[in-house]
Amino acid sequence: MIGVWDTVELEFEGKTAGNPFTDYEIYGEFTCGNGVKKASGFYDGDGVYKIRFMPEQEGCYSYRVYGSFSDKEFCGSFEAGKATSSGPVKAKGRHFVYSDGTPYYSIGTTCYGWSNQREELQDQTIDTLRESSFNKIRFCIFPKHYDYNYRDPARFPYIGTPVSRVGINKFTFEDYYNISPENKWDLTRFDTEYFKMIDRNIVRLMELGIEADLILFHPYDRWGFSNMPAEANELYLKYVTARFSAYRNVWWSLANEYDLCKSKTIEDWENYADIVTKNDPYSHLISIHNCVKLYDFTKPWVTHCSVQRQVGENELDNIYSWLDKYNKPIVIDEMCYEGNIEQYWGNISGQEMTRRMWKTVVLGAYPGHSECYLNEDIWWSHGGRLYGESYKRFGFLHRIMSEIGFLHPVDYTAAENTDGSVRLEYYGEHRPCYKIFKLGDERCRIEVIDTWGMTVEDMGIHSGNVKIELPAREYMAVRITKQR
Amino acid sequence: MIGVWDTVELEFEGKTAGNPFTDYEIYGEFTCGNGVKKASGFYDGDGVYKIRFMPEQEGCYSYRVYGSFSDKEFCGSFEAGKATSSGPVKAKGRHFVYSDGTPYYSIGTTCYGWSNQREELQDQTIDTLRESSFNKIRFCIFPKHYDYNYRDPARFPYIGTPVSRVGINKFTFEDYYNISPENKWDLTRFDTEYFKMIDRNIVRLMELGIEADLILFHPYDRWGFSNMPAEANELYLKYVTARFSAYRNVWWSLANEYDLCKSKTIEDWENYADIVTKNDPYSHLISIHNCVKLYDFTKPWVTHCSVQRQVGENELDNIYSWLDKYNKPIVIDEMCYEGNIEQYWGNISGQEMTRRMWKTVVLGAYPGHSECYLNEDIWWSHGGRLYGESYKRFGFLHRIMSEIGFLHPVDYTAAENTDGSVRLEYYGEHRPCYKIFKLGDERCRIEVIDTWGMTVEDMGIHSGNVKIELPAREYMAVRITKQR
Repeated sequence: MIGVWDTVELEFEGKTAGNPFTDYEIYGEFTCGNGVKKASGFYDGDGVYKIRFMPEQEGCYSYRVYGSFSDKEFCGSFEAGKATSSGPVKAKGRHFVYSDGTPYYSIGTTCYGWSNQREELQDQTIDTLRESSFNKIRFCIFPKHYDYNYRDPARFPYIGTPVSRVGINKFTFEDYYNISPENKWDLTRFDTEYFKMIDRNIVRLMELGIEADLILFHPYDRWGFSNMPAEANELYLKYVTARFSAYRNVWWSLANEYDLCKSKTIEDWENYADIVTKNDPYSHLISIHNCVKLYDFTKPWVTHCSVQRQVGENELDNIYSWLDKYNKPIVIDEMCYEGNIEQYWGNISGQEMTRRMWKTVVLGAYPGHSECYLNEDIWWSHGGRLYGESYKRFGFLHRIMSEIGFLHPVDYTAAENTDGSVRLEYYGEHRPCYKIFKLGDERCRIEVIDTWGMTVEDMGIHSGNVKIELPAREYMAVRITKQR
Repeated sequence: MIGVWDTVELEFEGKTAGNPFTDYEIYGEFTCGNGVKKASGFYDGDGVYKIRFMPEQEGCYSYRVYGSFSDKEFCGSFEAGKATSSGPVKAKGRHFVYSDGTPYYSIGTTCYGWSNQREELQDQTIDTLRESSFNKIRFCIFPKHYDYNYRDPARFPYIGTPVSRVGINKFTFEDYYNISPENKWDLTRFDTEYFKMIDRNIVRLMELGIEADLILFHPYDRWGFSNMPAEANELYLKYVTARFSAYRNVWWSLANEYDLCKSKTIEDWENYADIVTKNDPYSHLISIHNCVKLYDFTKPWVTHCSVQRQVGENELDNIYSWLDKYNKPIVIDEMCYEGNIEQYWGNISGQEMTRRMWKTVVLGAYPGHSECYLNEDIWWSHGGRLYGESYKRFGFLHRIMSEIGFLHPVDYTAAENTDGSVRLEYYGEHRPCYKIFKLGDERCRIEVIDTWGMTVEDMGIHSGNVKIELPAREYMAVRITKQR
């Protein structure tokens, strides 16, 4: 039986004359009690049209499927039973909750191109994720062309032929500004096998409890998918929202590094946001990710801030003021990655990656990891396996986050949970050999946390002014819990 | 024989009736060729008045000493011979030079209270400095009262009796806002032994080639020297400028953390700057150091920016814009200290201290060290010995600075020397396993510098695009030198 927040998929034969991607429409209308929801369907090749739907309440659903794709209408019904999951993640104030109210403590990773690599590499990525503690992964729908990313994807999203790879061994933005005329794409005909691959990967992530932060546009391109005409962009956005919206773990990221997508204006992005939100019946999380200049996150359609920290500012500390400015959850998806590649954003140590992740958490935001060790496949783009040290520490970080609850920063190094019963201080690169805590009349348990060693040492229950010896090592934290 | 920039000291008996510190004046007028310079003298106790003078050119000086201190005038002459030193340090654009034109690459340390500790500790500090590579030390004229600094100084600057130390074991700003009435000072009578101790220490630093960055006021106080009436401040400033100006290695720092000196206004600081510059015949370097808010360094009397980086901003990167804004040398006197004490500003690792020092240098500014390992004596306040790891690395840093010449940042991680013949890239916490350099037609020597291991590896002479393997460790730099 279907549970609430599961995906119902209905399949119909329909017309094939002309171009089924553009010439016909298919809609579903789903009724449960007094509620009616409309969902667009999509053409999936071979004369098959599909409607996907995600019930959001328990009960009996009746549906009607109609549109120019067929001369007939179709009706039916199904029962949506008890939820088998916590449902889609939503913003709640400056934090996230699943739709059943369970808090969601986001610890993401990024593998931009994993979902269009060769199949065995996709499988390896899934195996790695299964063993990891990540509960979000950020990746692109379109293939990626960039340094270390010159091979062609497993398939292409459109029917046609790509530019030859011969002689391509370095990314330059010229590739993107001057898309080769060798590319011959029919931008009105999707390769449905490409999108089935993404379907499958979204579902596999769903089964692992991992949110799929789908990047709709990006500038790393030699094929022209970053520079399509307006009607092609609109067709694409409607297609992916019709196709993916019914998966509860989908987040929309309008762009990676929108400010490098030189052919698109703010007006364009606002228009894309409009298309996506209008065609997503479930109001999935949606944001847009910067290179240098943050997007205007005060826009009402932005559900959370998806941020890349900027060169030369170390602005993790800016989270503190962004929370007040935007009053939305903040996700720092890129704060440099663990690794050893040439680029400064991909060569920090496991310790430094872990430090930035903890710092982000103590500032009341949600951190994103990736890894760039120089190998044939690099996690950041290809997925595959992890070679580093930081990823092993995020299960521990997630455990501490879950134990404490939502964190609200009180200064740059300390946060409290919502009812003020727990305070978390994180010292990062600082190495005090003791700390004095002024607890007043409260009886508090004090615990010393080694965020790198992943240990919690109980220092007992104290009140008044208490001096706690610390090991004068980097990466230590202290948790102070009021006893009630 | 006296050399240019040495100190000439003339001594005279004078009147003792009343209060010689306030009731009489003594001036010297020194003539050499067409040049005439006037210097104030000072009372040094036991009926002795002194004039100190620093000749700034070679030749025969004649002098006349006059004033109400004596009913007589005194005349004399001396020959100023060849300089035995490079002379006082001056600002030159955004950098420093000695008066003979030799570049001065400042690598400072801070020992706020070293000069009024017990004598054997002062001696130990001098011994430590002799073995170190520091060429500037920042310290206070007034004694310091602060955490870890509760004992009384060896002497006090005024005649009188201090507040009792009983029960004082924690610094609070209340000590400073509500100075105890137990303090009984005659603020018109200096303890000349206290100032002789400072004389001696300035001279000992001079002999070691170390600049004495004298802090004239600070807020860490239980005795009331931070809250004196206006006439006492003026008397004090005239006394110290008369007493110390003729030492070539003196810099004036109007305050440490001026913005915590709540009893003093910007108008006051401007007035102090006016008194000091008017009474210093040699125009020594002068600045004023912040806690949070930078002073307005555009003021014409400010010769260089003396900066404390601020909490929560990691604003070493701000140097990049400050250079353009102020167009003066920038000294980052406080960027957290190596150590293990409770306070965040005193517990970073030797690696992190060294990283910040190098980063400051590559940003075109000059760095300041200190050390806070919890011991009876802590270098940052008391001097004594050093326990850390970073100080051992600054001779190497100074060597690299001297070899390259003044550095001008080209971005946040690279700088060039003045004629563009040398480029220095510093990777800090970043760990590339290789870098590609685009040298064009230039033939360049490439050297890989391990700033922590203190090695320089010659990678040979290259041109065109060259890939240089790097060890993927933290704290590496690369120097690229054009071959001519």
